[in-house]
Amino acid sequence: MSSVNVKIAIAGIGTVGGGLLELIRKYKSSDIKINVTAVASRRKQKFHGQFLKNTLFFKDAKELLSFDDYDILVELIGGEGGVAKKIVFDALKKKKNVVTANKALVAKFWKELKSLEYKNKCVLKYEAAVAGGIPIIKVIEEFLLSNKIKRIYGILNGTSNYILSKMLSSNKEFKSILIDAQKLGYAESDPTFDIDGTDTAQKLSILSSLAFSFNNSANSIKNEGIDKIKLVDLKIAESLGYKIKLLGITEIDKKRIKNYVYPCLLSKDSFVAEVDDVYNGIVVESDYCKKSFFVGEGAGAYPTATSVLSDIVNLSKGKENNLSIYSQLKKYDSVTLEDRYGSFYLRFTTDDRSGVISGIAEQFKKYNISMKSMLQKEQTGNYTNNATIVITTHNCFERDMMKALKRINNLNFIREKTVYIRIEKFK
Amino acid sequence: MSSVNVKIAIAGIGTVGGGLLELIRKYKSSDIKINVTAVASRRKQKFHGQFLKNTLFFKDAKELLSFDDYDILVELIGGEGGVAKKIVFDALKKKKNVVTANKALVAKFWKELKSLEYKNKCVLKYEAAVAGGIPIIKVIEEFLLSNKIKRIYGILNGTSNYILSKMLSSNKEFKSILIDAQKLGYAESDPTFDIDGTDTAQKLSILSSLAFSFNNSANSIKNEGIDKIKLVDLKIAESLGYKIKLLGITEIDKKRIKNYVYPCLLSKDSFVAEVDDVYNGIVVESDYCKKSFFVGEGAGAYPTATSVLSDIVNLSKGKENNLSIYSQLKKYDSVTLEDRYGSFYLRFTTDDRSGVISGIAEQFKKYNISMKSMLQKEQTGNYTNNATIVITTHNCFERDMMKALKRINNLNFIREKTVYIRIEKFK
Repeated sequence: MSSVNVKIAIAGIGTVGGGLLELIRKYKSSDIKINVTAVASRRKQKFHGQFLKNTLFFKDAKELLSFDDYDILVELIGGEGGVAKKIVFDALKKKKNVVTANKALVAKFWKELKSLEYKNKCVLKYEAAVAGGIPIIKVIEEFLLSNKIKRIYGILNGTSNYILSKMLSSNKEFKSILIDAQKLGYAESDPTFDIDGTDTAQKLSILSSLAFSFNNSANSIKNEGIDKIKLVDLKIAESLGYKIKLLGITEIDKKRIKNYVYPCLLSKDSFVAEVDDVYNGIVVESDYCKKSFFVGEGAGAYPTATSVLSDIVNLSKGKENNLSIYSQLKKYDSVTLEDRYGSFYLRFTTDDRSGVISGIAEQFKKYNISMKSMLQKEQTGNYTNNATIVITTHNCFERDMMKALKRINNLNFIREKTVYIRIEKFK
Repeated sequence: MSSVNVKIAIAGIGTVGGGLLELIRKYKSSDIKINVTAVASRRKQKFHGQFLKNTLFFKDAKELLSFDDYDILVELIGGEGGVAKKIVFDALKKKKNVVTANKALVAKFWKELKSLEYKNKCVLKYEAAVAGGIPIIKVIEEFLLSNKIKRIYGILNGTSNYILSKMLSSNKEFKSILIDAQKLGYAESDPTFDIDGTDTAQKLSILSSLAFSFNNSANSIKNEGIDKIKLVDLKIAESLGYKIKLLGITEIDKKRIKNYVYPCLLSKDSFVAEVDDVYNGIVVESDYCKKSFFVGEGAGAYPTATSVLSDIVNLSKGKENNLSIYSQLKKYDSVTLEDRYGSFYLRFTTDDRSGVISGIAEQFKKYNISMKSMLQKEQTGNYTNNATIVITTHNCFERDMMKALKRINNLNFIREKTVYIRIEKFK
């Protein structure tokens, strides 16, 4: 039980890196001593604290390629390519361990990274890449042993969850909340990947790969984002007993993998519907533990830095991944979104005249779609000639719904393109 | 990355032990081979599977005292004394590692067990002792590093949560649901410790000891159970926007420790209020991660067995606890329940006549208690001469409330002893 000295090199000191330095400074353990041998950061900054007095400072992370004096490379630069990719692969080739928060890289190069780990008997840890404040990787790798995971779903992006929550609570449209969120630091200046579902798809790809040993890639997940969600839909959904959340869903169904990313209606009673603001929430369904549910802050320097520190310390304690499982990654067929069999929320904007409902119903009949509920909203304001009709459906095939909507959108009483949002029945 | 062979001896094959054997049989890893060298079980049973063909069978767990051919003792007998205590202490004295699900033992002998671990450089793991399906010990020990925990609270007992949930959903009183629960296997034949809060207090004691390095003992926690909760209180609470849950709460407040176990009203919007049936739910509040929330099944063979297997495998991978922190357990003063400053739900059963409210209000004034809301229920059925008055209060000191209630209960218009349930404001 003698003390272990571990040398780490940190690449990238942004928000998370700054948080990590603070956590390392405060970390007290007589078992593990963390020695930061090098820091690579483009911006010159003051590094303070006795614990950094012998630390080398590199302006360019590439200098780490010819640097060897570390046990663990901590990569906090981000991005699926560029210098982040170079230094991570370089470190693994040098048989060094790596800790990263880089979801894009891990999602895209899962197979290559795993095979390099296995070949070189070193370890890549990436707790911080998925849901910063939730130790979901640890739970899957170290806790749910012998449990067969059936499905994982959840809110994986704090920014979009914040926007959806705030739209409803402050009665404002998407764009106005996005601007507020950017001012408050909850959304980046370019929030595209958070909002269009790319970030969620990357995290989902990692969870799917891990849970099902799936030789997967984020690129193959077709994601929809929250930019099409209107305040009116959030409100109608609420009146029907639902909340709208951007979900990532991965599951095994008859030896085929489903990986879906889209905003959807969820019963207000469901675990995930309760997760608001910048929080992330993840449900893991397994054979022996049935349902496990984890909630934590999904963004911010400190929750993510907590994940990074946890990986560093656990690696230093000699904890190894169950590497051998990666020697035989499986190939599964994917269930495409067109194969989805599920229900829908539909909002039609039509002329306010007779024949509308029967026109819609006729197309539904053609494609085996049956209605579950219908609601005609009374019009207020300027649009007195428009009618808003909201229909929820029973389960149907996605491809049938898309064909029906295409036809319906061409009918002469339709004023605006029909809004469709999927409904998920997770409890 | 060569394969590790680990030898385990299992004491006690009841529900959890049976589940564990199944999980071990299914556990596949080329890194860790689990070899069950001995099983002690009072009841003779069929052990099947190739993996048990070389296993010794003891009828009396005491035989393990003179048995040495194991790396890890897995103690699943339970109870704070007797043979369970003997074999656990014996194993640690032999410098063997121990995995246990025994909350009573760990809660009561925390200090002794920790000092023995530290002295003998061996490890006791007890994930299964607190909230079977939630890896809460792992989260605190391995994830929230550098985070200072401020407060942990949650639903720690599946049986009592099941009873409270079912009373409301099936509109039945406590006793009737308890009988159903026993038939369904959700409550033991002697459910005293589950219902009176003892089980929650033991688990809370462990969490408190771990989170605050507190030299604590379950015995010092004054617990209240759910047997006094009536259906009418669940219903009124619901109409006021609350749910009633049996909580364990541990927190540091000005260097003093609060350890409370009681049923209380919680806003329906709070994380924990959403946790129903046999599920457990735990919130950890820390400085850097703010709020983390974990939900999982609180009872049953498999979630608990999952925790035990997780401990076995993690120990086998050479993962050590941060033992040194236990060399200096801290002593804190405790905040007693009498010191509690909080609000109350009160249900008075009185004569249906004038002067009642003013009589109650007079006593409140004397003890600096101020009302937040008042509700007089219309009487139906046989009790037409009784009035039911429900009052919620602003924060006040527990000792003042107890004095006021003592006086109020002696007033001549009071027909039944006044029901009080605390209100907690966790979000």
